[in-house]
Amino acid sequence: MNNSSKRAILFVSDGTGITAETLGKGLLSQFEGISFRQMRFPFVDSPDKAAECMKFIRKAHAQDGIRPLVIMTMMNPQISTLLRQEDALFLDLFEVFIAPLEKELGVCSAHAVGRTHGKTNSEYANRIAAISFAIAHDDGVSAADLKNADAILIGVSRCGKTPTSLYLSMQFGVRAANYPLIPEDFERDRLPDTLLPFRNKLYGLTIAPEQLCRIRQERRPDSDYAALETCRKEIAAAERMMRLEGIVWFDMTSRSIEEIAVQIMQSINKKQ
Amino acid sequence: MNNSSKRAILFVSDGTGITAETLGKGLLSQFEGISFRQMRFPFVDSPDKAAECMKFIRKAHAQDGIRPLVIMTMMNPQISTLLRQEDALFLDLFEVFIAPLEKELGVCSAHAVGRTHGKTNSEYANRIAAISFAIAHDDGVSAADLKNADAILIGVSRCGKTPTSLYLSMQFGVRAANYPLIPEDFERDRLPDTLLPFRNKLYGLTIAPEQLCRIRQERRPDSDYAALETCRKEIAAAERMMRLEGIVWFDMTSRSIEEIAVQIMQSINKKQ
Repeated sequence: MNNSSKRAILFVSDGTGITAETLGKGLLSQFEGISFRQMRFPFVDSPDKAAECMKFIRKAHAQDGIRPLVIMTMMNPQISTLLRQEDALFLDLFEVFIAPLEKELGVCSAHAVGRTHGKTNSEYANRIAAISFAIAHDDGVSAADLKNADAILIGVSRCGKTPTSLYLSMQFGVRAANYPLIPEDFERDRLPDTLLPFRNKLYGLTIAPEQLCRIRQERRPDSDYAALETCRKEIAAAERMMRLEGIVWFDMTSRSIEEIAVQIMQSINKKQ
Repeated sequence: MNNSSKRAILFVSDGTGITAETLGKGLLSQFEGISFRQMRFPFVDSPDKAAECMKFIRKAHAQDGIRPLVIMTMMNPQISTLLRQEDALFLDLFEVFIAPLEKELGVCSAHAVGRTHGKTNSEYANRIAAISFAIAHDDGVSAADLKNADAILIGVSRCGKTPTSLYLSMQFGVRAANYPLIPEDFERDRLPDTLLPFRNKLYGLTIAPEQLCRIRQERRPDSDYAALETCRKEIAAAERMMRLEGIVWFDMTSRSIEEIAVQIMQSINKKQ
């Protein structure tokens, strides 16, 4: 093996390949210290496209001196058989799980491509509506709009409200608005009156002052807004207000937007 | 089996459970005509939380008259063993794939929870930056901003630019701006001058007039803007302009934002 090169890993699918990539990255994160170069091969749904992918496998094998890994979700077993002529480690998610599911459910699967993100179901329409909602209600919204939200994220400027509310809308179809806590709220030392009627759907976000300071410095270097002292004061004030009002809050410091979004979903579900 | 009820399917993980849910939904989409009620159990990382989940499995089994399906990603084998005391069909994504990967890579996996969406890597930072970019550059941006975009989506109002650019940023870390084509562009019958220097990173979106009409009707019922005739004219004009300038475009009519986003990624990669 040529140690200077990275090992190739291919995410192959006759659909978008997003499932293969998501699981593949989860699996690879368990193997520290090994570098991979990742390649996506979506929509591999014909012998021609399979041939392209096979050529890449051979090339990568020769270049790296070691066979590539192939993580796939293939609905079409014929295309899958073609690919398997090459020397690689093939892990096919659908292959492994479709058979036990067919047995358990007592029916055959459709083996149809492109259903994962199907547009026909109401879940999809719901997600698109939620995304529009999140965009339209980013950073300060009217009371009328807050009424229609499933969740309202509050916190200081740049603590992560926007990406978290977008993720909530995109992944879970939740209509998430967000509402920044600003210096005049801190002076009054209480939550804006607009928010109080919606206390039961408020979720707070917080973050370590040092991390907030770094994020704000990128946006407005050397400003008062970005100063560590300002970040410290704002966060302390925001947490105090949320504590007083009994608002649950989540710390973005060492957690990703995905993790926080799932925690917020858990809170929402518990209330329902 | 009680036919009036839906069969329970649980997405269980000691992490966010997003991987289990993504794959699980992909698998279930292959079984038409069977209704499932889906439940998420994220962060099942202690015997207490496992016990909660086990209680739910028993309850669902009794209620449905048939054992539930459990799709899981469990890093901690001890928690997994606890769950498996219950009667359900367990499909554990990590269990099935970690062993062959360990063998292939010649190392042991970390069996550590919460690495999938790790915050420490530059990929995460890149995604967050791209999301901010997409939000800041939604619907009409300055020429200076267009320069910094990886991709600029163009198309008529409400054809799907916003959710697609957000998905591109969130899933792939692409800095996607979007730029609406508006009636005055159609009158001039050419792309706005602002866009022309960036021809190589323009991607068009289009949609069937009937579908656009439905979407616009929801937004502004009985307006000129939403009239089928307007939709037809705008789409024809937009497609003509894109054809003249040699801009690749994608049809949102029967494809999801995920599918279109992956196709745009393929175009971006080919150019690089």
